Amino acid sequence: MDFRPDEMTRAFADEARTFLDEHVLPAEPVLAKQVEDTPGDWRVRPVVRDLQEAARERGLWNLFLPPGPHGYGGGLSNLRYAPVAELTGRSPRLAPAAMNCNAPDTGNMELLAHFGTPAQQEEWLEPLLEARIRSAFCMTEPGTASSDASQIGTRVHREGDEWVVNGRKWFATGAMNPDCALLVVMGKTDPNGPRHRQQSMVLVPRGTPGVSVIRPLTVLGYDDRDHGGHAEVLFEDVRVPAGNLLGEAGDGFAIAQARLGPGRVHHCMRALGMAERALDLVRGRANERVAFGGPLARQGVLREWAADARVEIEALRLLVLKTAWLMDTAGNRAAMQEIQAIKVAVPRAVQRILDRAMQVFGAAGLSGDHPLAEMFTAARALRLADGPDEVHVAALGKAELRLQSSLMEGVVQ
Amino acid sequence: MDFRPDEMTRAFADEARTFLDEHVLPAEPVLAKQVEDTPGDWRVRPVVRDLQEAARERGLWNLFLPPGPHGYGGGLSNLRYAPVAELTGRSPRLAPAAMNCNAPDTGNMELLAHFGTPAQQEEWLEPLLEARIRSAFCMTEPGTASSDASQIGTRVHREGDEWVVNGRKWFATGAMNPDCALLVVMGKTDPNGPRHRQQSMVLVPRGTPGVSVIRPLTVLGYDDRDHGGHAEVLFEDVRVPAGNLLGEAGDGFAIAQARLGPGRVHHCMRALGMAERALDLVRGRANERVAFGGPLARQGVLREWAADARVEIEALRLLVLKTAWLMDTAGNRAAMQEIQAIKVAVPRAVQRILDRAMQVFGAAGLSGDHPLAEMFTAARALRLADGPDEVHVAALGKAELRLQSSLMEGVVQ
Amino acid sequence: MDFRPDEMTRAFADEARTFLDEHVLPAEPVLAKQVEDTPGDWRVRPVVRDLQEAARERGLWNLFLPPGPHGYGGGLSNLRYAPVAELTGRSPRLAPAAMNCNAPDTGNMELLAHFGTPAQQEEWLEPLLEARIRSAFCMTEPGTASSDASQIGTRVHREGDEWVVNGRKWFATGAMNPDCALLVVMGKTDPNGPRHRQQSMVLVPRGTPGVSVIRPLTVLGYDDRDHGGHAEVLFEDVRVPAGNLLGEAGDGFAIAQARLGPGRVHHCMRALGMAERALDLVRGRANERVAFGGPLARQGVLREWAADARVEIEALRLLVLKTAWLMDTAGNRAAMQEIQAIKVAVPRAVQRILDRAMQVFGAAGLSGDHPLAEMFTAARALRLADGPDEVHVAALGKAELRLQSSLMEGVVQ
Amino acid sequence: MDFRPDEMTRAFADEARTFLDEHVLPAEPVLAKQVEDTPGDWRVRPVVRDLQEAARERGLWNLFLPPGPHGYGGGLSNLRYAPVAELTGRSPRLAPAAMNCNAPDTGNMELLAHFGTPAQQEEWLEPLLEARIRSAFCMTEPGTASSDASQIGTRVHREGDEWVVNGRKWFATGAMNPDCALLVVMGKTDPNGPRHRQQSMVLVPRGTPGVSVIRPLTVLGYDDRDHGGHAEVLFEDVRVPAGNLLGEAGDGFAIAQARLGPGRVHHCMRALGMAERALDLVRGRANERVAFGGPLARQGVLREWAADARVEIEALRLLVLKTAWLMDTAGNRAAMQEIQAIKVAVPRAVQRILDRAMQVFGAAGLSGDHPLAEMFTAARALRLADGPDEVHVAALGKAELRLQSSLMEGVVQ
Repeated sequence: MDFRPDEMTRAFADEARTFLDEHVLPAEPVLAKQVEDTPGDWRVRPVVRDLQEAARERGLWNLFLPPGPHGYGGGLSNLRYAPVAELTGRSPRLAPAAMNCNAPDTGNMELLAHFGTPAQQEEWLEPLLEARIRSAFCMTEPGTASSDASQIGTRVHREGDEWVVNGRKWFATGAMNPDCALLVVMGKTDPNGPRHRQQSMVLVPRGTPGVSVIRPLTVLGYDDRDHGGHAEVLFEDVRVPAGNLLGEAGDGFAIAQARLGPGRVHHCMRALGMAERALDLVRGRANERVAFGGPLARQGVLREWAADARVEIEALRLLVLKTAWLMDTAGNRAAMQEIQAIKVAVPRAVQRILDRAMQVFGAAGLSGDHPLAEMFTAARALRLADGPDEVHVAALGKAELRLQSSLMEGVVQ
Repeated sequence: MDFRPDEMTRAFADEARTFLDEHVLPAEPVLAKQVEDTPGDWRVRPVVRDLQEAARERGLWNLFLPPGPHGYGGGLSNLRYAPVAELTGRSPRLAPAAMNCNAPDTGNMELLAHFGTPAQQEEWLEPLLEARIRSAFCMTEPGTASSDASQIGTRVHREGDEWVVNGRKWFATGAMNPDCALLVVMGKTDPNGPRHRQQSMVLVPRGTPGVSVIRPLTVLGYDDRDHGGHAEVLFEDVRVPAGNLLGEAGDGFAIAQARLGPGRVHHCMRALGMAERALDLVRGRANERVAFGGPLARQGVLREWAADARVEIEALRLLVLKTAWLMDTAGNRAAMQEIQAIKVAVPRAVQRILDRAMQVFGAAGLSGDHPLAEMFTAARALRLADGPDEVHVAALGKAELRLQSSLMEGVVQ
Repeated sequence: MDFRPDEMTRAFADEARTFLDEHVLPAEPVLAKQVEDTPGDWRVRPVVRDLQEAARERGLWNLFLPPGPHGYGGGLSNLRYAPVAELTGRSPRLAPAAMNCNAPDTGNMELLAHFGTPAQQEEWLEPLLEARIRSAFCMTEPGTASSDASQIGTRVHREGDEWVVNGRKWFATGAMNPDCALLVVMGKTDPNGPRHRQQSMVLVPRGTPGVSVIRPLTVLGYDDRDHGGHAEVLFEDVRVPAGNLLGEAGDGFAIAQARLGPGRVHHCMRALGMAERALDLVRGRANERVAFGGPLARQGVLREWAADARVEIEALRLLVLKTAWLMDTAGNRAAMQEIQAIKVAVPRAVQRILDRAMQVFGAAGLSGDHPLAEMFTAARALRLADGPDEVHVAALGKAELRLQSSLMEGVVQ
Repeated sequence: MDFRPDEMTRAFADEARTFLDEHVLPAEPVLAKQVEDTPGDWRVRPVVRDLQEAARERGLWNLFLPPGPHGYGGGLSNLRYAPVAELTGRSPRLAPAAMNCNAPDTGNMELLAHFGTPAQQEEWLEPLLEARIRSAFCMTEPGTASSDASQIGTRVHREGDEWVVNGRKWFATGAMNPDCALLVVMGKTDPNGPRHRQQSMVLVPRGTPGVSVIRPLTVLGYDDRDHGGHAEVLFEDVRVPAGNLLGEAGDGFAIAQARLGPGRVHHCMRALGMAERALDLVRGRANERVAFGGPLARQGVLREWAADARVEIEALRLLVLKTAWLMDTAGNRAAMQEIQAIKVAVPRAVQRILDRAMQVFGAAGLSGDHPLAEMFTAARALRLADGPDEVHVAALGKAELRLQSSLMEGVVQ
């Protein structure tokens, strides 16, 4: 549990910070302009393409994917990736995409690296690693409490050499983007099987007949069109070859769990970066803006907020690092409770920090003139992404109250 | 301090509730469709026009404006208006507009009724009361902490028979609407005068040369285009006749204060209606949605949230009613601390209630498919509207800590 | 729902305030001295006796007991009693006892007035109304979750002309006092009967053979010896005459419920008085104590706390008054949800207000030199008195989530 | 920043845990009995003496004092001490005293080791390290805001070969104990000197003429008589030899700061142990106690509390460890902001955890039958010990808002 960054970590983090300061932050107004100029477009904007090139040159590319037996991934361990991921969170619309480290592609690439056949990897993983295509993950359904996987309504049945998919999904992030070529779809292949063996994961090319991308959904008013939005997608008798199953039939639940672990941790790392960005902005504002006879920085309530934010960020960052370290050294499964803990605690804290930061900026803080409102929305959405917090809190609490509690890995305890 | 609704109140509230259930709520999807179909439009949509007609027939019109010496206003006292206003909050995009009780027009109509000359009333107030034109209030400025009125940068100087306005305002709600004919603008006529006599209030027709409506601003991703949006407006050598001052030169600050009191109370009333609507939606969802073996309604955390919400709503509604009663019986000035109290407490509670309601709905709760996300945004914005909460908290606390505390009007204390 | 105090209320409240300022507050150090001087004593101290005489002369006596068909009670309606009860909360160790309005005697007197036979009333109620004897209520048991009445372990069975009581009770407030002559004991007379008809209420003279007052219990370090403490009491084959049942066999649960309603409301009223006292003390301290260059009153955090406290007190006071009014006009049963609401909300808020007040006083705030620590403890204890808050929250939430919600009596809603 | 315990840490922690389980926890009822049997005594009770012997045999002695140039201290580095200190927090009345690691003696021993002359060390430090005498720290004064050292009212002036002390101190923990032989007193030797050079630290034997231990103070009803209580002490013309100054004249403020750093960290470590103990107790209760048809452990609210507690403890423990590591590697001064952070965050969290734990235990939780109430009180008191939290929050926030923020030592940031 040595959290101090080693030389390699420090080198990558330094590079990422320079890239952020010199390329990404200055590109923010460029993106805003490009989005304004092409309102009907759901594609990644040109400025992101430019940044991707620059990032790639600097070796800031696909760092999220640790090396593995799969042969892909020149990336970093979770612990080494943490500071880099946090830095990308400071400019969440640009930096992760620039470094090809943005959800949901990262999770999909992980799945393909771990569970894909060589053919699947060649067809999907390699272009994803090159950012030549984008992908979406289709799990949540409009009609059911999707955190309870036993309720998945989408059906996948075998007809001859094909799997036939029928169902309705939504909040498929990225699926509005015409460059999104792959939909990873969870459906039931065996609705009467054991509870956690009913589901399978199917790879569906977005252009397959029967796939209809129905409409975009908004998140607190944002459609995230520069990231491919969040789509409702209808699958009507969609036929894909037998080889398009990821893993075996019945593996769907396990694969989803495997996918969600690192994804949640990356979300938390980036969320801390959003909080740091907010503090940076608040610091600037508090010193520059004057009200009732002095700079805002002299007001007790701002000091209180800044102190609270600093303490929460520091404590939660350490918990994220511990989680990453545990995943690296004991495996994602061993870190399950830590992952639940940060999944719940980090977005909640970051939402509060951003809420207060917006308050410091007045009405401007709610507008598109500062990144606060958008980051606030992202933090708020994290409390529902990959299952509502309450499901995780209940699971954590249940484990904690067990008489022979299999506590989280304590430091000594 | 008799809060029980009298017969008149009950009659209006019953009428409003029937109107809400039979006309307004069914019109919500119609509005959504009309907005979707005319994305470039900032005008009030046809469905609102239809509802306005229906509301007017039922006598649900301009109820916000209590009768006064001005001869306008067949409306209700604050206490009687409260239950009606709360009901309109259940459908905040439609009901207030339908009944011509929506901000910022209500505040502007009040000002014109109280401080306007007969000529001003004829020109602006009467068409506003008929909903033939709309208006905006231009107070907040991008460059200053506008809650500190001494910092207002807009300048208004006299040249011959005209006032000349120069400055930049933003978050002028409604000003994107081409039907918005009147801008009520606060500027300094005497920058070296006594702190609270420097400001004046000018009536500027939106079409006056030199007025540029620069751009719309968003609030957490919403542009509120069906309400005329929130605009940045530039005033460059804008000339209006001498008669366009509201009140006397130097009255601006006092007029703004007068305007904000009832406005804040109306906001609070409607916010409680939003909370009740959220509870209605949660109740439906919790009984219909099943997860992990039972309806959500059986989960402890939902019960806890529902109980907390109910208790907060009940207590705060009483405080709002007390405030309204005090305004009716002792005047807006006497109710200043109560107004500050509810201005701070109500939006905070309602934001929390809506945040949890969204959580109950999962990702759908954040989307445009339910009114929760939009109401959440409205509640969030209220914490900044008419000055950030922190300014009011500080003022309240300062008064409370005074040795000879001029406490809020206690019940007996 | 007219909460404004009428003339009668105002007269009693004025009298009570004068009595408080002129007699009770000056007696606080006297009580402290008397307790210090007689550490082994569990009786009411002489200063209380003196105050009782003074209160009685002023007509401030037994005000808690509204007139009823029972012929006892020259007291006030709940709504009229509220301001008086709140005032007594400002000096909680002295004022309620001085005016013979202190728990648990008040609840016991109510029971005797409502359910007692003339013989029981003559023997117990009349001396209680004269403060010649004291009483205790024996409900909570050490071994069970006593908020679930079905778990009561104490047994009461009939043998000939007698009831025989066996069981162990604790937190019997007042029972350490040798002047405590009556124990009102809940036990099961029919352990196999319908869930809420198993229990009966027995009147047990404290001196009856088989009654052992085992030991005093502390509450956060306080033994409350000047109020008769909180006792563990053992009942071993305790025999009382057949006539000592309160109501009929099987009425115990209903009687307990009847008892708890007004008791909870009185607790809330007094708790608000504790909060007001805390604010008074904070106000004094904040203006007198200087740190880091100015009086504490200038610090932002104190202003924030004072404002929060004021807003919470105002809102909750109104909710308490509404509850009282509802009890007066529609009966205790109709006010059940309101009672639960204030039972949960008031102590929680008052504990927080007191916690912060102690913080303002520094270490002194935790000591016996100011009444804050003791009032804090009292507020904390209220969150468990008459059932832990969580039971009430769950019940409230369950009701609120019912599709046909029997909402609390709304103002118009 | 390697937080994983090394072998040495693990060995000490294992030893401490065994000692705790086998000796300390079983001794808790013994202590309770001894205190009950000797109510007038302020001395450490025999059971502590026995435990001290047992601890010493095991090498669990004076571990708080890291080795230093002073030649004293066979103790552990801060990072190694952390798990041991946390374990002692599980039985806070016994374990720290048993291992001679209890405040305020630890802080006083540190001062003597660092700043004492050989003569002072021989006279005071050595018997303290042997637990042959006890000591108290006299800083807080009744009349001033003692967190502002410039307000210290106690005066120390030179007369010939002596220092003469005049002043009044309170909350001198341990000073009621007749075995307390040494009072470390802060007073002003140069009231007109530079703000932080006015104060000096004097060593005053408790028996010196002019020293009057006036009275014990309570903390939420507890007098802590088994730890020597908390005393008010009057110094009237108290004369001590010139050699009794600790450090030089004017060093008082710097010495106090030096003392408070490690003390605050130790407090936080022990507080986390209190929280773990509370969770242990809750776990037991939640599985054993049945209400409304099932064990408490099945209730949603308990799971929520348990989850929240676990997450907070894990995150804060890591922050405490980081602080300890920083003190070990960069010095106490470099860790100043981290110390402030945990000083504020840990007691607040632990108080909340204990508050909820008491709620789970019902009235019993507030009583002396479980250690919860006493631990709650200890956590509450920590929010004032060594300066109220608000002073630290303000300082942290001020630093955080500085444009060139000297942030806390980030992991990479």
